[in-house]
Amino acid sequence: MTAPHPLPGFARSTVDGYAVRAADTYGVSEGLPGYLIVAGAVAMGAAPTATVKPGTAVAMPTGGVLPPGADAVVMIEYTAEAMAGTIEVVRPVAPGEGVVRADEDARVGQQIVGAGRVLRPQDLGMLAAAGVTGVPVHARPVVTIFSTGDEVVPPDTGELRPGQVRDATAVALAALVADAGGIPVYGGIVPDDRAALEKELRAALGASDVIVISAGSSVGARDETAGVVARLGPPGIWCHGLAIKPGKPTLLAECARASGEDSASEEAGIPVIGLPGNPRSALVVFRLIGMDLIRLVGGCTVWPPEPSVRARLDRDLASATGRLDVVQVTVSGGAATPVFGSSALLSVLTAADGYIVIPEEATGFDAGTEVEVTLYR
Amino acid sequence: MTAPHPLPGFARSTVDGYAVRAADTYGVSEGLPGYLIVAGAVAMGAAPTATVKPGTAVAMPTGGVLPPGADAVVMIEYTAEAMAGTIEVVRPVAPGEGVVRADEDARVGQQIVGAGRVLRPQDLGMLAAAGVTGVPVHARPVVTIFSTGDEVVPPDTGELRPGQVRDATAVALAALVADAGGIPVYGGIVPDDRAALEKELRAALGASDVIVISAGSSVGARDETAGVVARLGPPGIWCHGLAIKPGKPTLLAECARASGEDSASEEAGIPVIGLPGNPRSALVVFRLIGMDLIRLVGGCTVWPPEPSVRARLDRDLASATGRLDVVQVTVSGGAATPVFGSSALLSVLTAADGYIVIPEEATGFDAGTEVEVTLYR
Repeated sequence: MTAPHPLPGFARSTVDGYAVRAADTYGVSEGLPGYLIVAGAVAMGAAPTATVKPGTAVAMPTGGVLPPGADAVVMIEYTAEAMAGTIEVVRPVAPGEGVVRADEDARVGQQIVGAGRVLRPQDLGMLAAAGVTGVPVHARPVVTIFSTGDEVVPPDTGELRPGQVRDATAVALAALVADAGGIPVYGGIVPDDRAALEKELRAALGASDVIVISAGSSVGARDETAGVVARLGPPGIWCHGLAIKPGKPTLLAECARASGEDSASEEAGIPVIGLPGNPRSALVVFRLIGMDLIRLVGGCTVWPPEPSVRARLDRDLASATGRLDVVQVTVSGGAATPVFGSSALLSVLTAADGYIVIPEEATGFDAGTEVEVTLYR
Repeated sequence: MTAPHPLPGFARSTVDGYAVRAADTYGVSEGLPGYLIVAGAVAMGAAPTATVKPGTAVAMPTGGVLPPGADAVVMIEYTAEAMAGTIEVVRPVAPGEGVVRADEDARVGQQIVGAGRVLRPQDLGMLAAAGVTGVPVHARPVVTIFSTGDEVVPPDTGELRPGQVRDATAVALAALVADAGGIPVYGGIVPDDRAALEKELRAALGASDVIVISAGSSVGARDETAGVVARLGPPGIWCHGLAIKPGKPTLLAECARASGEDSASEEAGIPVIGLPGNPRSALVVFRLIGMDLIRLVGGCTVWPPEPSVRARLDRDLASATGRLDVVQVTVSGGAATPVFGSSALLSVLTAADGYIVIPEEATGFDAGTEVEVTLYR
């Protein structure tokens, strides 16, 4: 988006004072003031009615239009009324001092907001200043979130039968989707049944830009999910299994769009992410991969910065090479303390302030290593 | 918010495999497997129908309920079917291995989400797991945003008359208010007229938790605003003028609530922030002070982390002692480059990646100093 007009659009005073010809102030000092005749005053939001000729000055509010003939504004603090209609000036000003040029904030045609990034508050301000109250934006991706598993019941279930667990993942995923700029839609809880899952996924394909499935944790449930997703292709499954801990049983796929959509949009399929059934694993993987995918689908190419802090590990951390490890930590007084626990434990995530990533090539970090902690917010 | 039930609520398998008595696996190896009779299988989301007695095992999916008698689950990878109804086990397991305890994610009464902080995605997940689908929260503060100044016109004004500027500040402030958890309400543009401003502010007091005024830039306009705000007290003006650059002409005040509200709420007044008229100054001050005020009014006591990065200044930065300086910078390749320009220029903010703060006691930073850059997002 480029500036349709120069901004601010007129030479503007940045101080309260007097518009002058700078040359009229050269050599003045406290001991030897210069004297100028006040030829008028500029009102806010109005065109100047006076001109600054040699030996004269015009009273200026901050933000007022610089009158013709003036090339600087001397601050009121460096002036005094010498007699009615005359001021003395005790400090010289250079041309351009106390003024912003008519195109100093933006020239016509200058880019004021770039594509591919979230509009920041100041970007909205700059657009408003330029009179731009609407800009073309990417639509927020609609992300349908399914939970699968015969053991999964809605969060509002009061009493559980043995073996049942409430769906913790969907609401947390929805919050991450929204944070990544997507519109989360709950697809509901689907039992471990191939036909039921296929029916739900096919219905969702027509109304989603991305589909997320927190698949069952067991091998059988994961295989069911992969089998159904494969049937929804082409293009089909990109990969099944990632060298990430926790999060290994992750499925990434692209499914054909529902027929009946226009031909242009048929070129790219719908990304489908099958997440591990453990809530903690699912949220770790989705934060690493899913949020970026949603940003990309939403047209984001410049990532918003994430909060992070550098801290020293207070104990050794082992890791297998060839696998990326995500380790939750608390941070206090510059020290990062790992929060250990099964990948089945959501409390590891709620107890943590953030996480560190041990890259594939590392065999771990020694105590005392300075690590970058990405902070949860 | 504390856990009303233990979580996950039952001893749960974390792997696919066989529930066993750990003692039955002691001493087994690849060369000398142990043999166990399969006494049944646990189904997902269902109570176990078999018991693990010495010498027996029960097939387990990840997430299944540990059957009576078992104290560990051996991963399927370390088992093989020896003959129909019998498995061999080639690795020993310790008690508790492959299992999370019934209260390992949360004990009854354990705090699962603390007060005073924004609920993170994993906190929502933990609440859902505990069956908590509603929690008492602080109301989002309603923040009414006024713009003042005879020169200020709405952003959708096509052609400007000489001296007019579009209102850039209100929309940017609204975005910052929302980011701090508040509900922004546009109060509109009020001319530099004491009576008009007082009328608008009095009307807003009854419907706001915080009032923000981007006051006119000129001394006269600022004095008008301060005068009106003083009349809305008690308690009245806290301070007028801050040792911050940019942002010196900032007004902080507390105004009496509109009469007719209940007596309990009359104890605290409505905070009023009068911001400098320059959009850039206004946004710098509001980010430093206003956002925290809104978080506090909204009940936030644990601040969400802000993105930041450490970088080396690539030039000297001077600063007056006794004044906090906020300097916008771009960051590239570990170097922070100041973006200079008049406080009247919004483009300084849109060009910047973030800002550094030079504290009151410093006389500036030398080139090469490592500084903490708070990143805009």
